[in-house]
Amino acid sequence: MKVGFVGLGLMGAPMSRNLLKAGHTVKAWNRTKSKVDAFVADGGEAASSPQDAAEGADVVIIMVTDSPDVQAVVLGEGGVVHGMSSGSVLIDMSTISPEVTREIGATLGEHGVQMLDAPVSGGVLGAQNAALSIMVGGPTDAFERVTPLFEAMGQRITYCGGPGMGQVTKLVNQVIVAGTMAAVSEGLLFGAAAGVDLDAAFKAVSGGAANSWQLENLGAKLLQDDFAPGFMVKLQQKDLRLVLESAKEMNLPMFTTPIVHNMYRAVEGQGHSDEGTQAYIKGLEALAGVKARSEKS
Amino acid sequence: MKVGFVGLGLMGAPMSRNLLKAGHTVKAWNRTKSKVDAFVADGGEAASSPQDAAEGADVVIIMVTDSPDVQAVVLGEGGVVHGMSSGSVLIDMSTISPEVTREIGATLGEHGVQMLDAPVSGGVLGAQNAALSIMVGGPTDAFERVTPLFEAMGQRITYCGGPGMGQVTKLVNQVIVAGTMAAVSEGLLFGAAAGVDLDAAFKAVSGGAANSWQLENLGAKLLQDDFAPGFMVKLQQKDLRLVLESAKEMNLPMFTTPIVHNMYRAVEGQGHSDEGTQAYIKGLEALAGVKARSEKS
Repeated sequence: MKVGFVGLGLMGAPMSRNLLKAGHTVKAWNRTKSKVDAFVADGGEAASSPQDAAEGADVVIIMVTDSPDVQAVVLGEGGVVHGMSSGSVLIDMSTISPEVTREIGATLGEHGVQMLDAPVSGGVLGAQNAALSIMVGGPTDAFERVTPLFEAMGQRITYCGGPGMGQVTKLVNQVIVAGTMAAVSEGLLFGAAAGVDLDAAFKAVSGGAANSWQLENLGAKLLQDDFAPGFMVKLQQKDLRLVLESAKEMNLPMFTTPIVHNMYRAVEGQGHSDEGTQAYIKGLEALAGVKARSEKS
Repeated sequence: MKVGFVGLGLMGAPMSRNLLKAGHTVKAWNRTKSKVDAFVADGGEAASSPQDAAEGADVVIIMVTDSPDVQAVVLGEGGVVHGMSSGSVLIDMSTISPEVTREIGATLGEHGVQMLDAPVSGGVLGAQNAALSIMVGGPTDAFERVTPLFEAMGQRITYCGGPGMGQVTKLVNQVIVAGTMAAVSEGLLFGAAAGVDLDAAFKAVSGGAANSWQLENLGAKLLQDDFAPGFMVKLQQKDLRLVLESAKEMNLPMFTTPIVHNMYRAVEGQGHSDEGTQAYIKGLEALAGVKARSEKS
């Protein structure tokens, strides 16, 4: 297929390469020009604007950070809407507001363009290995047409429902991810305060009813004083902000998620925004005056 | 070995049978006499009191509910301490307070009896299949002597440290278990409120960074309106009470665990104490006025 691609960041760079590898023609735009040059060196085409990336494309893929970014590159001056032809499909793979997604979709509909929201999980490693989990909302006929593109970038591709439902599913994912990290951290900190050997405790509790991806991967990392990001605190905070904004729109009370968001705010205040989400433990440690790990010398 | 066994409840009944199957001689006492009769029918011996169960035993195992229960059957009138000989070992496999554990251990020490705390996870199914996870605290020489007994009842046997550290590790487990269930529930309820197909969302988020034993097992159950216990709300509440009491002793602030305990209190107030811990969602549903599942007709 002929694909326009907007956003060659940590995620978009490997995703766009996987489309090239699968034999698609990809013309890309990115705010920082050097990333476009690197993309051309890898066999892609350069676009001078989002609109230019969209000209003549069957499908345009957006992979940027937040709701206003998507609004700008899709509907703003030089945005893809001005280049897309009737009958083409826009896929937004960023994680943004479900409500904003539906608004953008409605505007695109007036131009005869179908929109799919298709946020991903699996991180940079998943993007590199074409192993992303992709959660898709929007019209089923558009979903079926672009499935080969999803298959070039991901492994677990789930159709979740109508417009915005991919975003809703991604936010469900983030609520669970953040809350599970909070549970893992609070359990380990309790053990540390009580003086248990945390390596023994970790061994005892992983594998059973307490086990989770978060415990096995990020719990193990934090015990080794390893706070390199997988997924950065500031991005988790952006996603939890989207959750709480959406909950407010729905007048939905949430019980533990705002508390977890609040602790991450403290962690950001400590200067750990760019660390991995396992830095949650640093907030608890400051609150309790107890360390859950031996810091590296 | 010659084993005295106190407590033939849902867990103790299959655990004591697994000791018989492994060739040990087991003399058991239980408050309700009919359970002792059933044990005798299965090849065990009957004791008329905890003290009687302990007479002549190399090892006495306790499997009851809470700290006062253990204190009563060990140190009370007719308690095992009055029957145990110097050099024998008491193993408390109940989940109780780490602090009370250390007090009982100190008293037993005055009688020349060593104590191990060895709470378990894995539930009734784990007890039946001799597949329990066993977290052990206490003297290492006692641990080594009784390891064959643990191997007859469990699969993952972890030595966690000195007296009380088995209990601390079990409480770490429970903090993580309860917090993960809260995260799973809050995520699914958010999805339900936003109108997503929860079966699709469940499929999309399980298997990735949001995955956990709680999501895979109890999340799946609650979506099917299945609230049969695995592990009952009232027992989770007992364990979280032990966590919070222990945290108070240590002057340790906890951040999300008291909130989760509080939601389970609401769930108990709704009359769901004897349901499985996945009934957490019922508290959220009442708070939000949203259902996360189709109730069975």
